[in-house]
Amino acid sequence: MIDIATRVWNHKWKIDPIVRSLIDTDFYKLLMCQSVFRNSPDTNVTFSLINRTTNVPLARLIDEGELREQLDHVRTLSLRRGESTWLRGNTFYGKRQMFTPAFMEWFENLRLPPYDLRRAGDQYELTFEGAWPEVMLWEIPALAIIMELRSRAVLADMGRFELQVLYARAMTRVWEKVERLRALPDLRLADFGTRRRHSFLWQDWCVQACHEGLGNSFAGTSNCLIAKNRDMEAIGTNAHELPMIRAALAGDDAALARAPYDVLADWHEEHEGNLRVILPDTYGTEGFLANAPDWLAGWTGIRIDSGAPETGAETAIRWWESRGEDPREKLVIFSDGLDVEKIEELHARFSGRVRVSFGWGTLLTNDFRGLVKDDALAPFSLVCKAVAADGRPTVKLSDNPRKAMGPEAEVARYKRVFGVGGQVAREVVV
Amino acid sequence: MIDIATRVWNHKWKIDPIVRSLIDTDFYKLLMCQSVFRNSPDTNVTFSLINRTTNVPLARLIDEGELREQLDHVRTLSLRRGESTWLRGNTFYGKRQMFTPAFMEWFENLRLPPYDLRRAGDQYELTFEGAWPEVMLWEIPALAIIMELRSRAVLADMGRFELQVLYARAMTRVWEKVERLRALPDLRLADFGTRRRHSFLWQDWCVQACHEGLGNSFAGTSNCLIAKNRDMEAIGTNAHELPMIRAALAGDDAALARAPYDVLADWHEEHEGNLRVILPDTYGTEGFLANAPDWLAGWTGIRIDSGAPETGAETAIRWWESRGEDPREKLVIFSDGLDVEKIEELHARFSGRVRVSFGWGTLLTNDFRGLVKDDALAPFSLVCKAVAADGRPTVKLSDNPRKAMGPEAEVARYKRVFGVGGQVAREVVV
Repeated sequence: MIDIATRVWNHKWKIDPIVRSLIDTDFYKLLMCQSVFRNSPDTNVTFSLINRTTNVPLARLIDEGELREQLDHVRTLSLRRGESTWLRGNTFYGKRQMFTPAFMEWFENLRLPPYDLRRAGDQYELTFEGAWPEVMLWEIPALAIIMELRSRAVLADMGRFELQVLYARAMTRVWEKVERLRALPDLRLADFGTRRRHSFLWQDWCVQACHEGLGNSFAGTSNCLIAKNRDMEAIGTNAHELPMIRAALAGDDAALARAPYDVLADWHEEHEGNLRVILPDTYGTEGFLANAPDWLAGWTGIRIDSGAPETGAETAIRWWESRGEDPREKLVIFSDGLDVEKIEELHARFSGRVRVSFGWGTLLTNDFRGLVKDDALAPFSLVCKAVAADGRPTVKLSDNPRKAMGPEAEVARYKRVFGVGGQVAREVVV
Repeated sequence: MIDIATRVWNHKWKIDPIVRSLIDTDFYKLLMCQSVFRNSPDTNVTFSLINRTTNVPLARLIDEGELREQLDHVRTLSLRRGESTWLRGNTFYGKRQMFTPAFMEWFENLRLPPYDLRRAGDQYELTFEGAWPEVMLWEIPALAIIMELRSRAVLADMGRFELQVLYARAMTRVWEKVERLRALPDLRLADFGTRRRHSFLWQDWCVQACHEGLGNSFAGTSNCLIAKNRDMEAIGTNAHELPMIRAALAGDDAALARAPYDVLADWHEEHEGNLRVILPDTYGTEGFLANAPDWLAGWTGIRIDSGAPETGAETAIRWWESRGEDPREKLVIFSDGLDVEKIEELHARFSGRVRVSFGWGTLLTNDFRGLVKDDALAPFSLVCKAVAADGRPTVKLSDNPRKAMGPEAEVARYKRVFGVGGQVAREVVV
């Protein structure tokens, strides 16, 4: 029996919206948003799309009209009652009322601000400008929309069975990864793949596959909507935008040198336990840790998001030891370009020495490599970053110079202020 | 939206029937049935289930109650109006009214006769006895039911994602086979996998995958229901039961020696063109062809269903040449235990020398080898054969002694009458 009403209802959709909820975003975005809402609500920021994989000609692949329709649809969204209830009532990281009534009231009334979209050759220039707490919430939906529109463009010419077999192959691949990971004792792994997912439904499938296949080893997902729908933990802490914007606003070199620690001082006030996780690489991990105040050594853990992950973790271990901390009690979250082999290696090397955890992103939720002609579904490195704050450019150095960004002169100044010397370049796949 | 009516309706099913139509059977069964209905309607025959893979303990895997429910359900079936219309009105092998009004009237009033089911150790003894045209129609549904009940028994303990990934893997495997076969120029291939399919839905999927993936190289399916539903060609000619029963009824050795040709003389009257296909191996291909009347050399083709397929085809080619026929105009249908490698080999060896065609069975519709623990879904060699006619045992020699059947003394007599000497045994996988 065909449900005629459903079929007729489906006819009424003008588009098939990719992002259908304001909480179809990463949990750390909301945590950071609350912090920004409290500490810097009036800072004016610009976020901009950056396609690091320039040989993917987004503007030729994706129709501009479709892209506008999807972005416009996101601007019609507001927090639903059930979503608000979940954010207000749920326990996150063991804590009730993670989100304050003031923040929730603001969020409930939020609609995302306008966007600016232009075509520039084979790429799009997509920027968002306005109050930091509002603009920052564009990052994840903008990325997810572009990734999924690209998937749809590639899939448009495929037959019904080709599609079914494509997904069969991709499912098999994810499941084989899950089966390998299942063998790792005391594994702790979460989905961090929202921003560069193949599609929403695919991420949802991957998360459920991890949940069924890994059981308690699967800590949850960074995606709030999936966490809510699937009754899982929402996972995430903070990101580079906090120190980048704080640094951009610093009045002089001394303030600049302090900025990354000032940000974490705010965070220290706001959060405890497993949310106290250092992201040390914005301006070079070595210098950040060497110059860090002692209270930071008391934090629960560290997230390794660029550079050689072994080096980052060994640096952190030595730093904790030098500050009289026991690394075995510390959490190390690996979150950069992970796939099964790397997870296995890192797990083997660091288990027992620290509490190891993995934030598995693109190669969980978008591993379609080699599955279609010309590898047209391979993931690529698309980001949406804060590029300016109150009219001043932002800078990121990272532990991998290929992930660095900012005007040349400013990059040089930051390198001097943060004492960053030679760096090893690593290919940025995702 | 959930379709409540459908859900409630689904609750009402007491069982999930495996065979839901009298035309969920092989096309050649209906062709043969019509021939039997015309030539030997009153012959009393016994068909019996034979599990050649004795290490698959069917009676421990399959619940007897469930088996009875499924068999009982088949006995409630009668030809539906649309099915009758299709058989009466459709063109088969380029011919209208393949089925006579007299046969159709009989078929429309048919219900399948009773069955006899007993447990014998770890196996079931399942026999059907009665008028040949009725009893013969039990073969395919009985096999399909047992195969699918075994699949269900193995799948019963699997989780939802495990199941999804199992089918994803199986789909990927079938599709990879299709992609390999697509490379073969002028391939001609049909689905012969009804009897030993993993399940009805799975066969239906495999047939559609072949249809989409192989295009015109896919000639159709032996399954009438799928051919009807999917608007494809129904494929098939005749089988061993015709000569076996005719031979069993022969009054003396001279009549016995004539029996295989007498059967084909009837067929010669009834059919022409691509339906004139010799199945030569019942009592040994060599002797059958050597002693065949000249009018048989004028037939369109031959089906190679046991023994080394290369040997069978070479024998046929030599025979045609010795009779002044041009093998390049002859059809050779390979139908025994095929998989992609063998299809590629045979295609390479015989293309251009004869018109090559493939009837691909079990390893198309039931290749779950290696996909679950203990290989519990691997296909196995289950058949349902005529074992007696009017109280006399049947005999099959085949070109592979492992496929031979019949009482020892009778086998010896047949070997003498048909001049069958030493034979090469080949493993029977499916």
